Amino acid sequence: MANAKLLPVLLSFLILPFSALALTQDFCVADLSHGDTPAGYPCKAHVGAGDFYYHGLAAAGNTTNLIKAAVTPAFVGQFPGVNGLGISAARLDIAVGGVVPLHTHPAASELLFVTQGTILAGFISSSSNTVYTKTLYKGDVMVFPQGLLHYQYNGGASPAVALVAFGGPNPGLQITDFALFANNLPSAVVEKVTFLDDAQVKKLKSVLGGTG
Amino acid sequence: MANAKLLPVLLSFLILPFSALALTQDFCVADLSHGDTPAGYPCKAHVGAGDFYYHGLAAAGNTTNLIKAAVTPAFVGQFPGVNGLGISAARLDIAVGGVVPLHTHPAASELLFVTQGTILAGFISSSSNTVYTKTLYKGDVMVFPQGLLHYQYNGGASPAVALVAFGGPNPGLQITDFALFANNLPSAVVEKVTFLDDAQVKKLKSVLGGTG
Amino acid sequence: MANAKLLPVLLSFLILPFSALALTQDFCVADLSHGDTPAGYPCKAHVGAGDFYYHGLAAAGNTTNLIKAAVTPAFVGQFPGVNGLGISAARLDIAVGGVVPLHTHPAASELLFVTQGTILAGFISSSSNTVYTKTLYKGDVMVFPQGLLHYQYNGGASPAVALVAFGGPNPGLQITDFALFANNLPSAVVEKVTFLDDAQVKKLKSVLGGTG
Amino acid sequence: MANAKLLPVLLSFLILPFSALALTQDFCVADLSHGDTPAGYPCKAHVGAGDFYYHGLAAAGNTTNLIKAAVTPAFVGQFPGVNGLGISAARLDIAVGGVVPLHTHPAASELLFVTQGTILAGFISSSSNTVYTKTLYKGDVMVFPQGLLHYQYNGGASPAVALVAFGGPNPGLQITDFALFANNLPSAVVEKVTFLDDAQVKKLKSVLGGTG
Amino acid sequence: MANAKLLPVLLSFLILPFSALALTQDFCVADLSHGDTPAGYPCKAHVGAGDFYYHGLAAAGNTTNLIKAAVTPAFVGQFPGVNGLGISAARLDIAVGGVVPLHTHPAASELLFVTQGTILAGFISSSSNTVYTKTLYKGDVMVFPQGLLHYQYNGGASPAVALVAFGGPNPGLQITDFALFANNLPSAVVEKVTFLDDAQVKKLKSVLGGTG
Amino acid sequence: MANAKLLPVLLSFLILPFSALALTQDFCVADLSHGDTPAGYPCKAHVGAGDFYYHGLAAAGNTTNLIKAAVTPAFVGQFPGVNGLGISAARLDIAVGGVVPLHTHPAASELLFVTQGTILAGFISSSSNTVYTKTLYKGDVMVFPQGLLHYQYNGGASPAVALVAFGGPNPGLQITDFALFANNLPSAVVEKVTFLDDAQVKKLKSVLGGTG
Repeated sequence: MANAKLLPVLLSFLILPFSALALTQDFCVADLSHGDTPAGYPCKAHVGAGDFYYHGLAAAGNTTNLIKAAVTPAFVGQFPGVNGLGISAARLDIAVGGVVPLHTHPAASELLFVTQGTILAGFISSSSNTVYTKTLYKGDVMVFPQGLLHYQYNGGASPAVALVAFGGPNPGLQITDFALFANNLPSAVVEKVTFLDDAQVKKLKSVLGGTG
Repeated sequence: MANAKLLPVLLSFLILPFSALALTQDFCVADLSHGDTPAGYPCKAHVGAGDFYYHGLAAAGNTTNLIKAAVTPAFVGQFPGVNGLGISAARLDIAVGGVVPLHTHPAASELLFVTQGTILAGFISSSSNTVYTKTLYKGDVMVFPQGLLHYQYNGGASPAVALVAFGGPNPGLQITDFALFANNLPSAVVEKVTFLDDAQVKKLKSVLGGTG
Repeated sequence: MANAKLLPVLLSFLILPFSALALTQDFCVADLSHGDTPAGYPCKAHVGAGDFYYHGLAAAGNTTNLIKAAVTPAFVGQFPGVNGLGISAARLDIAVGGVVPLHTHPAASELLFVTQGTILAGFISSSSNTVYTKTLYKGDVMVFPQGLLHYQYNGGASPAVALVAFGGPNPGLQITDFALFANNLPSAVVEKVTFLDDAQVKKLKSVLGGTG
Repeated sequence: MANAKLLPVLLSFLILPFSALALTQDFCVADLSHGDTPAGYPCKAHVGAGDFYYHGLAAAGNTTNLIKAAVTPAFVGQFPGVNGLGISAARLDIAVGGVVPLHTHPAASELLFVTQGTILAGFISSSSNTVYTKTLYKGDVMVFPQGLLHYQYNGGASPAVALVAFGGPNPGLQITDFALFANNLPSAVVEKVTFLDDAQVKKLKSVLGGTG
Repeated sequence: MANAKLLPVLLSFLILPFSALALTQDFCVADLSHGDTPAGYPCKAHVGAGDFYYHGLAAAGNTTNLIKAAVTPAFVGQFPGVNGLGISAARLDIAVGGVVPLHTHPAASELLFVTQGTILAGFISSSSNTVYTKTLYKGDVMVFPQGLLHYQYNGGASPAVALVAFGGPNPGLQITDFALFANNLPSAVVEKVTFLDDAQVKKLKSVLGGTG
Repeated sequence: MANAKLLPVLLSFLILPFSALALTQDFCVADLSHGDTPAGYPCKAHVGAGDFYYHGLAAAGNTTNLIKAAVTPAFVGQFPGVNGLGISAARLDIAVGGVVPLHTHPAASELLFVTQGTILAGFISSSSNTVYTKTLYKGDVMVFPQGLLHYQYNGGASPAVALVAFGGPNPGLQITDFALFANNLPSAVVEKVTFLDDAQVKKLKSVLGGTG
């Protein structure tokens, strides 16, 4: 098929016409030292296999906290290799009785795989306020549509673990309670826009460190 | 430039080579009698000027209700002409003391123009739970990013009206209170995922017609 | 539900696992001091509520000009908060007898709300050159598909005002007359590509300040 | 590596786990007998190699017409195989002195390869009305951004031919003269929105078969 | 805040202005009985919680086959709930010495979580033919950019399992060997386009059930 | 219609309200001196007609090489004007008996026009490994879906030339043989993931300059 005489020609073929292709964007590992753009971070100039690998989901998150749960993200900020690739991940650890409180991901849908324990999960549609809820066991998968309120909690007798994937590199996480009670949004405004009672709002502001 | 002899040629030119272009999709007015697709509704076969026009935002919405406010949508369901065009609209009427409660639009960003009165509006970021809030007067514009919690209320002394545009034909509207209290999501679950007290949850369930 | 002992744990929970989320892109206010990218401007590092607010559409544009009309844009260049959010706006003031001449927006569809007066508006399809036209009164809405030729004029007896929204942050505005007559495109070329007479072209070049 | 014993296992492997993949959408040849959707036509159920092949650009278009030019499209309506693939094509034949009049493609950018003769081409920016123009010879390529007004004419001494590609399956073609003069748009409206003289408008309406 | 008198008003508020929102597309569960479109399957009319849940990844795939591996997909064909949501999943079981042969996913990037055992994985860039390879242990994540050749094999002493997520509902799977040797592509063509020897091609055609 | 008195007004109209439009992004010529982003290169500040023009496809590529073929790209790296416009091009020269070996374009579909000679072309689906193949003559067009393996070879008696367009500015080109044999991917790995024999792998590694 080929012989030694053609080899130099081939090599020049490899080098010359295809050298131009060095600009082809197979991937775009985030250069987090630069600012973001609407489509993601600028691409890092030099990359290696390590840029496409992440170890941070191997260890359990610390669930010794109020919600008895931990969300460990592998979004573009932690795992720059996913920049521009339309996907990212997270690990969920939920102790017995723990909960990932009501929240949304404004920028991606979520796929949850249970790898250990039992998780009660649900989401609520925007149109009809319909609740879609399931008890998930090891090996089960559930999908949560982008931007819709959902929750997960451990209703079982042992710790639960889930691996979560998102259809975007930077899905965001807006926990309703934190949005209302963990900042300086005045209690009067919270009450006005939620119809919650003043005592309830002040109690949760106190628990979650909010002011006003 | 042209003369009568060329006219027949021109007409055949108009009819022949361009007849193929009849399939060009300049627009895709929704045929709501067919099911939806991930990109929107199938296109209606025959359209007229009326398909690109909507009168439903001309009249004030009825604000004689609990929230003293009305959201009148011109989404694809009401205004099929916006299907596939990446835009839609709504009208907001807020009586004195009225409120559009805390909510999100899962599928589009929002631009609000105040056309009458005074509106206090705000949104909350997902990352840092930062509150961005403004008092808006007639002629002011505010933008609310897709999927983030926001609210509007009338803090003035006269009715307020706003025209709202969305960067998508079907933005959705998820009101947090309705998602939690206006359906059959069990109170125990609501309490678990929001840390609200049982009495508070049951009170709002009762007001908003929820069960469980 | 919570007690004082858990508060320090909660605060560390707030700070630690979620600090990584500070990179989440809820929005991307344009940093206009940097160059553009195909998806919009790089994101500004520090933002406040004022970045999501625009006052420039409150005042009427000056219609004392040839077209007796003014288009006041709130595109990304004027209102950097819309960068990356798929939406922008403009205000249209049209004096009696005024006109927004035949034009296109290459990069977004348009939604027009009439807030005062009467506007005669129309667009023309590309496939069949069909004209879709409507007389619009206060409160009416019309949608103009992306890239199609359209026009608005005030056929009533009093000034007309409209608020306009676009399904993109930077829709562009190409006025056919300006593209042909307000630059250095040689008259011979204009005549060749439009079949207009030489005298007509030269007359409009003179009116609109073109050369050649 | 493999032996006969493994073959049945392999075949079942081929059939069983991958049979589910029969739904994978490698392509979506348009079923033109169904209506369009915002993302293109529904996919044809059974396809063959012929669906990905088109012969219609092989022959020269007939340039015996007013513009001495022919545009032969290979858009989704003629070449259903491009549906959903973000690309389409056309052939341009321009006799000596012929012209493709001022036009836009609302739904795709254009890349023009000259394969024969000389073509003078240009486009006009929307922002500054700047003219970008080039004389193109055999082998030259020029790109015309989506939605911007452009034109091509044969300024040489022999027929010109170009192959044109579009970055979308259905780019559309809106010829300014046809939009204004080849339909029933009333002359008074044309004059109002273009500032053209009445005699000029009526002359071109007559040439292009328009009424009103 | 509310009282019994307002309840009827509220209920009418719930029913009237928001009934129009029933068309909001929070999700679009695939109706597989209809044909596909370029953006995915039409939406199923009636959905329940079960539509967002999938159990098929819970059990290990059968690795008693030539490659000693099994890919169990949860793409839109198996898990219709992911339609239009930009995400899907699969389970990988690889026996000791097993391999997921060189392949691409034409329509999505892949994120692989190792949940058991050791996987040697790699992908090859298109520009420079650079190999990016890693040995992955339990808890490790690797991302494979859309459309690039990659492979996984079990280089450890025990079975390996991975959960895989894709940034699209229907990523496709093109195994190079199957594309070349498991169909009727003539050996002469295979040899011409791969430079493989005739004996090699015929051997693999025989193993993989190809003809020609 | 206009008179001298209005001219100064018009000019101020041209300058004032539209000066803001200078930021409109009609196009985004790549500034290759800056790094890439997920949506393409940042935009060059100052552009001219030459930026939208490319001459590099006019001359035949050198086919005196192993494959007796040359691919001359006009991707964003060679032709910065296509940045952000969703289109690019290439020229294919194939000597008698030459071949563009089995390859994919990970980031765009391809449209091939034969301008000279005869080309045998084919692609293989991912789902069913079905081969779609055609003999193409001068004037014929074939489309190759994004990410699928395909090939072209000259089965005729004279040199073949094709112009190729891609539905993206940077389609990439991954030649299977180069990915396997023209780098340092160890032979043992190649054999494991392709089932090729050791002698075959080493022979091709030697021809294509690979190591390991």
